[in-house]
Amino acid sequence: MIRVGIIGASGYAGAELARIICNHPEIELTVATSRQYEGKPLSAVFPNLRGKVDIICENPAPEDLAAKADLFFAAVPHKTAMDLVPLLLDGGKKVIDLSADFRLRDVTTYEDWYQPHSSSHLLAEAVYGLPELYRTSIKESRLIANPGCFPTSIILGLAPLLKAGVIVPESIIADSKSGASGAGRSAQTGSLFCEVHDGFRPYKVGRAHRHTPEIEQELSVLAGKDINITFTPHLLPISRGILSTVYATLASKVTSETIQKLYDDQYQNEPFIRLLPEDTFPATQYVRGSNFCDIGFKIDQTTNRIIVMSAIDNVVKGAAGQAVQNMNLMCGFPEETGLLTAPMFP
Amino acid sequence: MIRVGIIGASGYAGAELARIICNHPEIELTVATSRQYEGKPLSAVFPNLRGKVDIICENPAPEDLAAKADLFFAAVPHKTAMDLVPLLLDGGKKVIDLSADFRLRDVTTYEDWYQPHSSSHLLAEAVYGLPELYRTSIKESRLIANPGCFPTSIILGLAPLLKAGVIVPESIIADSKSGASGAGRSAQTGSLFCEVHDGFRPYKVGRAHRHTPEIEQELSVLAGKDINITFTPHLLPISRGILSTVYATLASKVTSETIQKLYDDQYQNEPFIRLLPEDTFPATQYVRGSNFCDIGFKIDQTTNRIIVMSAIDNVVKGAAGQAVQNMNLMCGFPEETGLLTAPMFP
Amino acid sequence: MIRVGIIGASGYAGAELARIICNHPEIELTVATSRQYEGKPLSAVFPNLRGKVDIICENPAPEDLAAKADLFFAAVPHKTAMDLVPLLLDGGKKVIDLSADFRLRDVTTYEDWYQPHSSSHLLAEAVYGLPELYRTSIKESRLIANPGCFPTSIILGLAPLLKAGVIVPESIIADSKSGASGAGRSAQTGSLFCEVHDGFRPYKVGRAHRHTPEIEQELSVLAGKDINITFTPHLLPISRGILSTVYATLASKVTSETIQKLYDDQYQNEPFIRLLPEDTFPATQYVRGSNFCDIGFKIDQTTNRIIVMSAIDNVVKGAAGQAVQNMNLMCGFPEETGLLTAPMFP
Amino acid sequence: MIRVGIIGASGYAGAELARIICNHPEIELTVATSRQYEGKPLSAVFPNLRGKVDIICENPAPEDLAAKADLFFAAVPHKTAMDLVPLLLDGGKKVIDLSADFRLRDVTTYEDWYQPHSSSHLLAEAVYGLPELYRTSIKESRLIANPGCFPTSIILGLAPLLKAGVIVPESIIADSKSGASGAGRSAQTGSLFCEVHDGFRPYKVGRAHRHTPEIEQELSVLAGKDINITFTPHLLPISRGILSTVYATLASKVTSETIQKLYDDQYQNEPFIRLLPEDTFPATQYVRGSNFCDIGFKIDQTTNRIIVMSAIDNVVKGAAGQAVQNMNLMCGFPEETGLLTAPMFP
Repeated sequence: MIRVGIIGASGYAGAELARIICNHPEIELTVATSRQYEGKPLSAVFPNLRGKVDIICENPAPEDLAAKADLFFAAVPHKTAMDLVPLLLDGGKKVIDLSADFRLRDVTTYEDWYQPHSSSHLLAEAVYGLPELYRTSIKESRLIANPGCFPTSIILGLAPLLKAGVIVPESIIADSKSGASGAGRSAQTGSLFCEVHDGFRPYKVGRAHRHTPEIEQELSVLAGKDINITFTPHLLPISRGILSTVYATLASKVTSETIQKLYDDQYQNEPFIRLLPEDTFPATQYVRGSNFCDIGFKIDQTTNRIIVMSAIDNVVKGAAGQAVQNMNLMCGFPEETGLLTAPMFP
Repeated sequence: MIRVGIIGASGYAGAELARIICNHPEIELTVATSRQYEGKPLSAVFPNLRGKVDIICENPAPEDLAAKADLFFAAVPHKTAMDLVPLLLDGGKKVIDLSADFRLRDVTTYEDWYQPHSSSHLLAEAVYGLPELYRTSIKESRLIANPGCFPTSIILGLAPLLKAGVIVPESIIADSKSGASGAGRSAQTGSLFCEVHDGFRPYKVGRAHRHTPEIEQELSVLAGKDINITFTPHLLPISRGILSTVYATLASKVTSETIQKLYDDQYQNEPFIRLLPEDTFPATQYVRGSNFCDIGFKIDQTTNRIIVMSAIDNVVKGAAGQAVQNMNLMCGFPEETGLLTAPMFP
Repeated sequence: MIRVGIIGASGYAGAELARIICNHPEIELTVATSRQYEGKPLSAVFPNLRGKVDIICENPAPEDLAAKADLFFAAVPHKTAMDLVPLLLDGGKKVIDLSADFRLRDVTTYEDWYQPHSSSHLLAEAVYGLPELYRTSIKESRLIANPGCFPTSIILGLAPLLKAGVIVPESIIADSKSGASGAGRSAQTGSLFCEVHDGFRPYKVGRAHRHTPEIEQELSVLAGKDINITFTPHLLPISRGILSTVYATLASKVTSETIQKLYDDQYQNEPFIRLLPEDTFPATQYVRGSNFCDIGFKIDQTTNRIIVMSAIDNVVKGAAGQAVQNMNLMCGFPEETGLLTAPMFP
Repeated sequence: MIRVGIIGASGYAGAELARIICNHPEIELTVATSRQYEGKPLSAVFPNLRGKVDIICENPAPEDLAAKADLFFAAVPHKTAMDLVPLLLDGGKKVIDLSADFRLRDVTTYEDWYQPHSSSHLLAEAVYGLPELYRTSIKESRLIANPGCFPTSIILGLAPLLKAGVIVPESIIADSKSGASGAGRSAQTGSLFCEVHDGFRPYKVGRAHRHTPEIEQELSVLAGKDINITFTPHLLPISRGILSTVYATLASKVTSETIQKLYDDQYQNEPFIRLLPEDTFPATQYVRGSNFCDIGFKIDQTTNRIIVMSAIDNVVKGAAGQAVQNMNLMCGFPEETGLLTAPMFP
C-alpha cells in the first residue's frame, strides 16, 4: 500500500483526487492539506465524499509534510507549488504537480507568463505528464508536471497530425470551451451561478491565456519546429468538460482514411483515447466523470482544412484523473487502476 | 460469472444498468434489448459507454429471451413488463422489474391507477425491492419489484419515524422534486431542453401521480394501519436527483436526540444510507451518480412538526443502482459490489 | 419627469431597477450609488445595460444623497438601509426600501431576528408594499417597505383563503424554492456556479429563515389572529424565479368552484395576478422577467387539504418590479407603467 | 393600426413574435396559425403569454389567409413557406419570411442545399432582411427573407472588415455556438433536456450546415468576390443566444485603432449594434431577450490574425426581433419600435 497525500485538497482538483483515490486498491490517502479547512473532515467540505473519505484536513509546516506520505499530488496554485516541491523531493518523495510551475521547460518563457521561478533547477528534470506522449519518461520520473486542461485536449487532438506532417503548423487555431470548474473554487463574482448560468463567453482572447505557451511548447516538439498558434478559451455553463475545436490547413490533399489511420496507429492501444467513427463528433457529456479523451475529425475539402474535435472532463483527464494515471505509471500499477468508471450520462 | 440481461436498454435506466454492470466483477451482460435500436451497438445509442460496453441491441421474440441470461433487469414500461415477466420466471430465471407492475400488492389498487393486470397471480410472490426494509425476502425471491424513485426517497426518510410511532401518520405531506431523467427518454415536447431549463414546476398535483398508492402502501405497512398522504411532485432543471421534503406532525414532544437515535438504530449499518449531522441537510449534487440516500431532519418546535429531507440519484438508488443492489442480494454477492463509486461533485 | 435614485445599484435588484427604469416614460434615473464600483459606468458592471443606461456609479456622502433625486429605491442590505432612510425622508424624499428594515411592525420581533433597530420610530409609518393588499396606503405613503421575495409569493397565494376563513391557519406549510439571484451578488463559495448547478437543496430549515416573521405577520393580519407556519426555503439551479407550494387543511368541505370564486373576487382586476384554470399549475419559466404572480390550486379531497402554488420572478415581483409598481402608485402613474413586458420564454 | 399575422405561431420564433407584438403600439395581431393547436389559445401553448396575448390559434385554408392581416410573418419551415408566400403576395400583402426559402439568390445553390424551389421567380425580388446592410431596399420591399441566426451573427461581425479589405477572405473560420431554441420546438430525442443539459457538442461539421451558403453569399457580396469559409456550429446548454468566434488573417499589419474605426464608421448610428471597448468581449447573457448584436474583436499580433466575436439572442436578433425590425422599416415606423426592452441579466 503506497501512502499518498493531497496538498491543496479543498479545490475541485483536490476533491476529485480524493474521490478517485478512495476506490483505488493500491494506495491510501494519508494526508490532505488545506489552510482554510484545517481540522475539518474533507467530507464536510465536499459532502459527496461522506462515507467514502474520512480524512481530516491538516495544515502542516512544509518541512513536516514529506514524512506523511510516499507520493504527493500538489493541487495548489502555481508559485505555491514551486516552493513546496523541492522540500518533498529532498525528502525522497515522488511528486505530481498539478500547477503550471514545472510544465514549461524554458525558464524565461515561464517567467514571461508567470513570475520569477524559485526552483528552476528542477525544470530540466520534470516530465510533462501526458502519458500518451511521455509514458516511458513518466515511469522513471520523480517529478511530473501534470498538464493543463486545455493543453491536454488540444495536444492529444493534434499529435498524430503534427507528427505525420499532414497539417501546416502555422495554421493552427484552437477554439476551446471549458466548464466552470476550470476557474477553481475561489469565491469570485465572475464565477457565481448567476453570472455563468444560461450564458456563454470568450475570455483571455488573443495570446492572453497562460496555457498558450504550454500548448505551443508541446506542439512545437511534435512539429519539429517552433510554432505559434491562436488559442481562444470560452466559458461554458457546465460544471465539467472541455471541448476543443481545432482548425488547421492540410499540407496536401489527404483522404479521411489516411487521417483515420494516423490516429489509429498512434492511439489504438491507448486505454483512455477513444477515436470516433467518421461523422461522429465528441461531446463533453459523454466523457463526464471519466479519464477518456474522445477525438473526432472532419475534412473540409472546399477550404482544404481539417477540423479536429476533442473532449475531456477537465477535472479528470484534465487534472486529477491524469494525475492518477501518471501515479500508476510511476508506481508500476496497471495504468487504468482506479480509473475504470464509465462516463456518467445523463 | 452470472449472465444478466437488460430488457429495454435504450432508456436512461437501461443505460445506467449497462454503465454499472460493465464494472461489476461477478456478472456479464449477455443481452440488451431495444426495438428501436435493434442491431445497433448500445454504445452508439449512449456514446458514454463507448469502449466500456460492446453489446449490440437485440429484439428477440419474448419466448427466446429467457435462454439468453440467468437474471433479467426489466426496464420496460409498465404493462409491457407484466407480459414478459411470467415467461422469464417460467424459464427458471430471476427477474428484477423496474416498472410499477409488481409493486402494488393489491390488484384492485393497481388496476385503479394503471390498467388491467395480466399477471396478478405473481403479485403475492413479488418482493418490494427496498433492501433497507425487505433484505431477507429479497435474498430468497426470484421476482423483485424495484421501487419507484419518489417512493424510495420518501419511504426511506420516514421509516424509522413511522415504526417508532413518533409522528402522526395522517399528517404526512411529501413535497418532492425530481430531475428530468425521471420523465424518461421518449421525445415529448414537455421534456425538451427549452421547456425544462431555467425553470421549475409542480405536476400531477393532488393524488394524481401514480407513485401515490405505492408510497401509501409501504407507509401503511410501517405505520401499522392504512394511511393517506399528500404528495406533490415537481420537475427540476437537473438531469439526475430527487429531493423529498417531508412534513409530519410529531405525536408528542420529542428531542432531536431521540429522533437521531431512531435513525441511527435503523440505519447505522446500512451501506447506502448516509445520516447527516444536525443542521446539515441533503442536496442532490452530493449523491449524484451514486447509490446513496442522504437523510437529514429538523424539528420545528413552534409548530410541533418534523421536516425530513432525503436525497437520492433517481437513476441509481431510484432505479438502476437499487436494482443491482437487489441483484447482489439475490445472487449472494456482497451488497455493495459494483456500487462503490463515490458521488460525483461538482 | 420625476428624478429617481438607486442606492446600491451593483446588486441584482439594483441592476433590475435600472433595467426597468430605463424604459419607464415618467421617470429619470439621476443617481446610482455603489461603493465598489464608484466612478464606473453601471453598464460596465452590468453589460446588458450598455446603450440603455449611461449613468456613472457614485458614492456620495449620505447627507448629500437626498438632493440628487425625488424618490429613492434603497437596494442595500438591512441595517445599512435603516441608517440611510431617515436622512432621505428628512430631506423630503420618498423612499422604497427593498431591505427588511421596515417590513416588521413590531420592533422586538425585528430585533429578535436581525439586530438592534436604529430607526424604529419609522416602523409605524412604513407601509408594507404589497399593492394587492395595501394599495390605498401605499398611494399616500412616503416610506414603503418592499416585501421579501418568498413572502410575496406565499402571501399572495394564501390571502383570499385566509380572509374567507376556508383554511385552518395553523396547518399552513410553505415549501418554497428560489433561484440563485435571491442570494445576491456577493462572492461566496456557496453561490458559485459549480456549487449550485445541476443540484438542489433546502436551507435554513425549521424557523431559521428571516422571512418567517414577515410571512407570519402578514398571514396573521389576514387570518385575524396570530399564527405560526412552517416555511422551508430551497435553492434552485435557475437564475430567477420563486415557486411556493403551500399546503393547508380545509376548515370544511368546499368545492374547487368555491375556491376559484374566492380568488376571482379578490384578484380579477389585479394587473399582475394571473389566476390559472383548473388543473393548470404555475411554473417559474412563465413569469420570467415579468411582474406577474401566477397562482393555481388543487384540492386533495382524500386528505382534505388544499395545495396552493404561486410563481413569481424574485427579481421583479419579488423585488425591483414590485418596487416600481409601488412607485407608480406613490407618484400617481398608471400602476402598470414600465412593467408591461411579457414574460420571456424560453 | 396595421393588422399582422403569424403563420406558424407554435414554434419558438412564433411565440417570440407574439411576445414582441403584444407591446408594439402600431400593430395588432389578427391571426396566428397552428395546425397542431387549432382552436386553442396561443397563451395555453405558451403560458408566458397569458394575460398579454388573447388570440386563438387558427388553421385557415391557405387561400383564406391573406384576408386576415396586412402583413404576415411566416414562421413555418422551409418548403412550407415557399408555397404560401406567393398567395399572400398575390393578395397584396407584405411578407417577412423567417425560413430559408428566399434567402439564397441563386436557385441552383438553394436546390443543392434544400430541395426543388416552387417559387423561384420571387428570389430576385426578395430582400435579405439584414437592416444594417440592406435598410433602403427593405423599406421598399414587399418580401423580406429574414436572415438565419448564425448568418446574422457572422455577417454583422465581419462586414466592416470585408468591406475595407483588411482581412484575407479565404482565411475566414467561423466557430459558432447556439442555444437549444435554435433547434426548434419539435419533439426530438436530441433536443431533450437530459441530452443537452450540462453538455456541449459540435454538429454538422465541415460544410454540412445549411447556413453555410447563406453566410458565403453575403460575405461574398461584402468581399466583392466569391469566397468559401469554414463554419462549425455547436450546441450550447442554454435556451437563447448565439456567440460566433470568427478568425481571419489580416491582409496587412493594422492597429486596433484602425479596426475600431472601421466598426465605428459603419455601425455608430445603428440602433441595435453595440461595439465593445478594447479587451471587452461579448457574452450571450448580456443580449438575452433583446435585439442587440454585441461585437468585440482582438488582434493576435503574433499570428497576424484578428478574432471577431459577436453575440445575439438567436430568437430575437436572430429571428423574431429582426423580423419586427424589418416590419418597422417596411411600414415606416421608427426602427426601434417595440424593441426597446433592455437585455435581461441575470
